[in-house]
Amino acid sequence: MEIKRNYLLFLGDAPDQLAAKTAQGIAQWRPEWCVGQLRLPNCNADLGLPDVTLEAGREAGAKTLILGVANRGGVINAEWQALLIRAIDLGYDLASGLHNKLTDLPDVVAAAEAHGAQLADVRHPTEDYPVANGVKRTGKRLLTVGTDCSVGKMYTTLALHREMVARGMKATFRATGQTGIFIAGAGLSVDAVVADFIAGAIEVLTPNNDADHWDLVEGQGSLFHASYAGVTIGLIHGAQPDALVLCTEPGRAHMRGLPSYQLPDLKTCLDRNLEAARLTNPAVRAVGVAMNTKSLSPEAAADAKKAAEDLLGLPAVDPLKDGVGPIVDRLW
Amino acid sequence: MEIKRNYLLFLGDAPDQLAAKTAQGIAQWRPEWCVGQLRLPNCNADLGLPDVTLEAGREAGAKTLILGVANRGGVINAEWQALLIRAIDLGYDLASGLHNKLTDLPDVVAAAEAHGAQLADVRHPTEDYPVANGVKRTGKRLLTVGTDCSVGKMYTTLALHREMVARGMKATFRATGQTGIFIAGAGLSVDAVVADFIAGAIEVLTPNNDADHWDLVEGQGSLFHASYAGVTIGLIHGAQPDALVLCTEPGRAHMRGLPSYQLPDLKTCLDRNLEAARLTNPAVRAVGVAMNTKSLSPEAAADAKKAAEDLLGLPAVDPLKDGVGPIVDRLW
Repeated sequence: MEIKRNYLLFLGDAPDQLAAKTAQGIAQWRPEWCVGQLRLPNCNADLGLPDVTLEAGREAGAKTLILGVANRGGVINAEWQALLIRAIDLGYDLASGLHNKLTDLPDVVAAAEAHGAQLADVRHPTEDYPVANGVKRTGKRLLTVGTDCSVGKMYTTLALHREMVARGMKATFRATGQTGIFIAGAGLSVDAVVADFIAGAIEVLTPNNDADHWDLVEGQGSLFHASYAGVTIGLIHGAQPDALVLCTEPGRAHMRGLPSYQLPDLKTCLDRNLEAARLTNPAVRAVGVAMNTKSLSPEAAADAKKAAEDLLGLPAVDPLKDGVGPIVDRLW
Repeated sequence: MEIKRNYLLFLGDAPDQLAAKTAQGIAQWRPEWCVGQLRLPNCNADLGLPDVTLEAGREAGAKTLILGVANRGGVINAEWQALLIRAIDLGYDLASGLHNKLTDLPDVVAAAEAHGAQLADVRHPTEDYPVANGVKRTGKRLLTVGTDCSVGKMYTTLALHREMVARGMKATFRATGQTGIFIAGAGLSVDAVVADFIAGAIEVLTPNNDADHWDLVEGQGSLFHASYAGVTIGLIHGAQPDALVLCTEPGRAHMRGLPSYQLPDLKTCLDRNLEAARLTNPAVRAVGVAMNTKSLSPEAAADAKKAAEDLLGLPAVDPLKDGVGPIVDRLW
């Protein structure tokens, strides 16, 4: 699934900034692709981009209207539908990160067919993926893994990509979730793939490549998350990673969404991820720790990074505050 | 998904016995539910059941026509469709283990709607499952895990169920694959569930129960299978097993479908399964090894079982040849 650029970001009637989280990720990582934001009168989110009409967006070069927002009540209402159809009439493709599908809206589908517009529901894979074959591929792969969900795996992967590109290394960001897909312009939502094909889908996403090329694969979930470990291990096996970066956020009281589950310690967590990864790539090694220290004081953050470095013998950085240079230094 | 009993087993034009593997499993484990088999003239499979017409099947009490056969070329042809519609006219429900869906055949769907017949495509879950919550449930659960796919996990689970029922223990067989679903009359194909909901689906399949009741959960895949480990770990986490039985088949040259992958040793395999299971049930313990020794001489089989017992400190049995008494003896 390829999303045409540039983008106009539709924020709808987002009740708060959090509801526009996906659009915010796009604006943060790909500002050069975003011609502006389109907000309805009662929208409470703001990405700091120019407010642009559908018409002005087209004139500014936008080819895709991105629905990067959570909609109220899980329903795409009549007002939104009228706007989407007008966008199609003006020549836009539509790409949505909503649970509800654009392709379930008959009037929108009819308009898209009439204009040859693409409707991309990026949470819902449409391709049929193969069963993984486990055959070793050419090129190198780095995967971010985590102690928990939402600890910064996408952010870390993008920061690594930016640093490697700046150093002139060959690298591609491989997106496995909705926000990442908009940022990459392609990818697949691995958590929506049918269980038998998780690893196979990731093999397709990260194909043979040049010997000195790195695929930087966005991780998902955690081996220690009682809801999502199936996604995580399939992702590990399919990616055949040469390098792992362990992502964590100190200070969480429990695993996300699971009040009775504690977070794993970093050593156990890294060991299990390496164990799992060795099945399809016995040469895998850990290259660093990415720590989201937003909830810590500067002193506590320094202590936490130092403790992780001493425990694991790896560089530990907060990608947002420190950059990821020490991790990229260890790649080959 | 509940399948009404009794069954008439449709073998179609199965080219050989292997193509009728699903029907054979039903006939083997639930002969009392099978009023007979229905074969087309060029069918080369035979379950040893009486050959019965659709009409005679109904008179004998059949309520569901089971398509327990692989169809040639992956297409349900016109001849089959005519027969299926005639079955619906006679009052049958249809239940299919095919990849192709009955619900994709408009004429069959129309007939089913007209007669109020159920169409069950057991490979394709229709229910929406929740994300797993990881909350401990009442009752006890045993899960079969394996070194590889197709090493006898379903067979072992059914043998345990039979033995426990014979001893007057409270036990339910919980099916996670198509053949198991027909044998249980209910269940879900876990490998066809969307990745995010693997563990959640298994939580639904094995709900709260009496304190002295055992759910016997049919395992799938292997943590050491590069294609399917996502299914396996989600199943482990969702089942929250109190007891694991390790299933294996000595003598395999490589993992099923993966020529470059060796089988794990029994100790490593069991340790990893216990590690994974401890996440949602820290009290999990291994209770036995089920070994399919069909490819071994009696001496070699005895040696292999003895070696496994010495290595793991658990009873090792071939369920088909020895029964599973020594494993059930260890349950509580």
